[in-house]
Amino acid sequence: MIKITLPDGTVKDFARGSTPMDVALSISEGLARNVISASFNGTTVETVTPLNENGKLTLYTWRDKEGKKAFWHSTSHVVAQALEEMFPGIKLTIGPAIDNGFYYDVDFGQHTVSEKDFPAIEKRALEIARGKHDYKMREVSKKDALAFYENQSNEYKIELIKNLEDGNITFCDHDTFTDLCRGGHIPNTGFIKAIKILNVAGAYWRGDENKPQLTRVYGISFPKQKELTEYLELIEEAKKRDHRKLGKELELFTFSQKVGQGLPLWLPKGAALRERLEQFLKKAQKKAGYEMVISPHIGQKELYVTSGHYAKYGEDSFQPIHTPKEDEEFLLKPMNCPHHCEIYNSKPFSYRELPKRYAEFGTVYRYEQSGELHGLTRVRGFTQDDAHIFCTPDQLDQEFKNVIDLSLYVLTSLSLNNFTAQVSVRDPENPEKYIGTVENWEKAEQAIINAAKEKGLDYVIEEGEAAFYGPKLDFMVKDALGRNWQLGTIQVDYTLPERFDLTYKGSDNEHHRPVMIHRAPFGSMERFVALLLEHTGGNFPLWLIPDQAIVLPVSEKHEKYAQKVLNSLENHEIRALLDNRNETVGKKIREAELNKIPYMLIVGDKEQEDGMVSVRRHGGQDHGSISIEAFKNLIEEEINSTLKPFETKV
Amino acid sequence: MIKITLPDGTVKDFARGSTPMDVALSISEGLARNVISASFNGTTVETVTPLNENGKLTLYTWRDKEGKKAFWHSTSHVVAQALEEMFPGIKLTIGPAIDNGFYYDVDFGQHTVSEKDFPAIEKRALEIARGKHDYKMREVSKKDALAFYENQSNEYKIELIKNLEDGNITFCDHDTFTDLCRGGHIPNTGFIKAIKILNVAGAYWRGDENKPQLTRVYGISFPKQKELTEYLELIEEAKKRDHRKLGKELELFTFSQKVGQGLPLWLPKGAALRERLEQFLKKAQKKAGYEMVISPHIGQKELYVTSGHYAKYGEDSFQPIHTPKEDEEFLLKPMNCPHHCEIYNSKPFSYRELPKRYAEFGTVYRYEQSGELHGLTRVRGFTQDDAHIFCTPDQLDQEFKNVIDLSLYVLTSLSLNNFTAQVSVRDPENPEKYIGTVENWEKAEQAIINAAKEKGLDYVIEEGEAAFYGPKLDFMVKDALGRNWQLGTIQVDYTLPERFDLTYKGSDNEHHRPVMIHRAPFGSMERFVALLLEHTGGNFPLWLIPDQAIVLPVSEKHEKYAQKVLNSLENHEIRALLDNRNETVGKKIREAELNKIPYMLIVGDKEQEDGMVSVRRHGGQDHGSISIEAFKNLIEEEINSTLKPFETKV
Repeated sequence: MIKITLPDGTVKDFARGSTPMDVALSISEGLARNVISASFNGTTVETVTPLNENGKLTLYTWRDKEGKKAFWHSTSHVVAQALEEMFPGIKLTIGPAIDNGFYYDVDFGQHTVSEKDFPAIEKRALEIARGKHDYKMREVSKKDALAFYENQSNEYKIELIKNLEDGNITFCDHDTFTDLCRGGHIPNTGFIKAIKILNVAGAYWRGDENKPQLTRVYGISFPKQKELTEYLELIEEAKKRDHRKLGKELELFTFSQKVGQGLPLWLPKGAALRERLEQFLKKAQKKAGYEMVISPHIGQKELYVTSGHYAKYGEDSFQPIHTPKEDEEFLLKPMNCPHHCEIYNSKPFSYRELPKRYAEFGTVYRYEQSGELHGLTRVRGFTQDDAHIFCTPDQLDQEFKNVIDLSLYVLTSLSLNNFTAQVSVRDPENPEKYIGTVENWEKAEQAIINAAKEKGLDYVIEEGEAAFYGPKLDFMVKDALGRNWQLGTIQVDYTLPERFDLTYKGSDNEHHRPVMIHRAPFGSMERFVALLLEHTGGNFPLWLIPDQAIVLPVSEKHEKYAQKVLNSLENHEIRALLDNRNETVGKKIREAELNKIPYMLIVGDKEQEDGMVSVRRHGGQDHGSISIEAFKNLIEEEINSTLKPFETKV
Repeated sequence: MIKITLPDGTVKDFARGSTPMDVALSISEGLARNVISASFNGTTVETVTPLNENGKLTLYTWRDKEGKKAFWHSTSHVVAQALEEMFPGIKLTIGPAIDNGFYYDVDFGQHTVSEKDFPAIEKRALEIARGKHDYKMREVSKKDALAFYENQSNEYKIELIKNLEDGNITFCDHDTFTDLCRGGHIPNTGFIKAIKILNVAGAYWRGDENKPQLTRVYGISFPKQKELTEYLELIEEAKKRDHRKLGKELELFTFSQKVGQGLPLWLPKGAALRERLEQFLKKAQKKAGYEMVISPHIGQKELYVTSGHYAKYGEDSFQPIHTPKEDEEFLLKPMNCPHHCEIYNSKPFSYRELPKRYAEFGTVYRYEQSGELHGLTRVRGFTQDDAHIFCTPDQLDQEFKNVIDLSLYVLTSLSLNNFTAQVSVRDPENPEKYIGTVENWEKAEQAIINAAKEKGLDYVIEEGEAAFYGPKLDFMVKDALGRNWQLGTIQVDYTLPERFDLTYKGSDNEHHRPVMIHRAPFGSMERFVALLLEHTGGNFPLWLIPDQAIVLPVSEKHEKYAQKVLNSLENHEIRALLDNRNETVGKKIREAELNKIPYMLIVGDKEQEDGMVSVRRHGGQDHGSISIEAFKNLIEEEINSTLKPFETKV
């Protein structure tokens, strides 16, 4: 008998040679139906692998990341079989699972494969899958393995096998197909109910541009046809919502090759939107007792040596800036914290004056390789909605809660209601990795956990994920397409107060070290606007959207009245446009819909006569003919339903 | 006879050998009494120099810069005589006039001179001056000149004479004193009625640190004792108003050696003040049809090569920033214009969409030698209230007027009512120095002059002062101490639209070049705040000042009511403090006065009972006991008297 420990800690006895599937069956039939992969003592195993020793077993279903990995890797075998049948003589190389699906790198020889071949490949692969063939692993001697692929003249597999140790080589068989494989499969091909070949691309053997070019065939598969349909719809929707595309269409930002890649230029509508976001946060921060400061975008190299940022970013980031005549070296600032520490250091503080909360929309610069750049989400210069709180250790608890309150206010004001929190604490087994006293760490970790609990956050604790200088809490926001974005972080820091020798005079008249909290509810203005664009598809909350309304005169003779309406809206501080082109009102409505303008105000004979506007909401809702005053109330009501004033006890 | 042309263009005949004094006498006796120096055909001459050819003559009085220069240079002779008498054996070197007074560099040998010697030096120099000794220039042969100073063992003067050509060497005599001198004196020492020795400092002979160290004696003199008194008061007041001193006292900004010299850190009160200034201008700019944009603080070197800024700033400024892995070079931006040109270039424009007015509070970085740095007025990083207007040539006239309107609004809203304008146009004799067509230049210059005239500006036209890329208008503001500050500039630019190939589609469907206007009403936020500090001595206009009011409870038992008053003020958006220290109300008032807080609200028994506040204005005015509502009105009235809404026809 062997002892099997399950993730919840329960331990069960099984006969030696039992399989993960046996364990699943012992728990419930439902689980056994769904289990598709497993890991034993940290190693991926098949559901039919015999377990011969005591150990920890985790069972995976399609819902688990590891389950998906086994599912997609198994599908790559089926697709490879289909490709071999359809393109005789091709040479297979490797076919792993990736984050969303799998690929197989293939040397197609004289064949070419293109999009028009995809339906046939999918069809044949699905036929094979329906055969419910078991995936059967077997050990092969190095000699036999080499012989198998020499027979196929497959120099790629031969190279792979040559690098493996005899006794460690396994093949996987299913149906008529055999592949060199380490394992990690679902029980049989029958689980695969939907297969989609996504695209083909060039890829060098072993990623080396001096080696032969292969064709990488990307695909994805699902246990239900419905899930594939949903996935394809999601991809389609994500393309439509790509913030780079929407940013251009809505004229929010642009890039210039001359200015440099990864350096966004905010166009008028984007800059105004960002200003509204900044003013929104400034207002809440003022209530929460923050003070704005302004610091330069460069600092002496020495400043970042002191802070430790030079050690972290120096070599791999923008290189130092030299002066022409004097021996000085500056760096573009990668972080605002050293500057804020120097502001704190510009005068002595008593404990009575703490906490000090310095906030700045600080633009920082960090080098990224050009291949890594992506719209507003991966840039070389970005503006953090940064703040640093300097407080006594006793104040940490309350300050942390206050920051959570502010972060929650920011998320809900922007209708980002689907989020979780991750609390990163020390690795209890490696206490030497962290700076600061154990007492302070315990206090800080407890403060964060208490705060998360008290504020009712849906949080997980990740051991060993804390930075060496302190524990932290990160908000993970799920967008409308179900994708996760890591947003605002709240970090406790014991290092910088040490490095900058920050002090305050305590009630005992002695000098003490303050604790520092770093926080940024948006994260960065660039990334946050990208998230908002992709989350809302450009249909920003009304208080934030560039143009709230557009006046659409039915014909030329209503233009004068339309202009009057526009002026009146502007006087009411409603952001409005006027479309006085010589087009039909139907066309104007269609274009306003495309431009995602929330309210269309149609003015014709009747409206002009009655001094009214006919109001139509983006998406179709008709508010009928109302006065401008009533329209203003309508707008205010909609805004007030999401954007409430920040309430705080500070 | 010779023909003498005067500055107003009149030409008069005089006998050969007539002196500038003769010419002055021929104009008026009053002028002759006041004339103290002159220039003939561009060369400084004495009032008694015989004129032997036709030429242009300018007569100078004390009111002229050139007159002051002659006055102060002449005084340096008198002071040198006094020093020689009082410190026998010293060696004189050079003694020129400077912007405010004069100095004389002296090798004092075994003597030392210090502040306690100043009164005696002043007394003796003034005695000499009262002797009304004429300054008499005479030519001396090189041999005689050398002999004169060899006799004194003065190696400095000998070195100077050795570098002069025989026939070009002159001495100046007055009283018993003789000095090697090129000329440029007032008629006699009697004009000098007040002399002040200001300080002494070390200075190397010929500014070379490998040469002997001399003592530089600084002084100033005036034609009236009253003027000296006023000057000394002004210096005293300027010291009190030094923005570096006030900035520290009022906690507006600081510098950190670690961050780097010349890189200001704005403290909370300063950052909030700057934010108010920025919001004030943003509001007016919005009305004036500007759109805010945001651009990064770096750009590829190529961008500034295109714009021409690299040629101008490149070598002498912050050096290029390299990337670690790729062959890219960036520069800290010295100007925002190239970025705004690229924003303009991001989409095509029709003439119907112009003017485009892009505004940005853009922080730029320009290297200055550390010795040149001075508080906020000479820094290495500063934020311009920048904007660039892209318009058709036909719109230039109106746009220029609009910019003047906005600039005037900014100046008057800040009670800077004492200013003139300088219009810089081409040098008509060197048309090849300028780029752009003659037609466009004429149009632009005329547009500026028309605008200045129509807006009733007190302006002067400076020929040859235009930049090579276009004419401009600068505002020169006189502060409360009578000192001139060059503020907002408005420049027309034909070059950048060429260099960046900017176009718009005209009504003829062809591509045309827009004209660009650069403008910054504040100039830079740093310099403008420095001016405001020195102009107001920290007594900022009420709408701008950090703390508008302070609540002063008479004793501990009024604290609760005082807190209520404070909350009420905050609800009324009045920026207020509470001084609840256990001090007498008299002391609290004195400190509030020192801290330049405009309104003190004293609350004692009576105020508490009646729900009132006793209001005292900074400087002493008593408003009696009034309600908080009435106080709010008082404040609003004062603000509205200087800060009116911007009116524009755009």
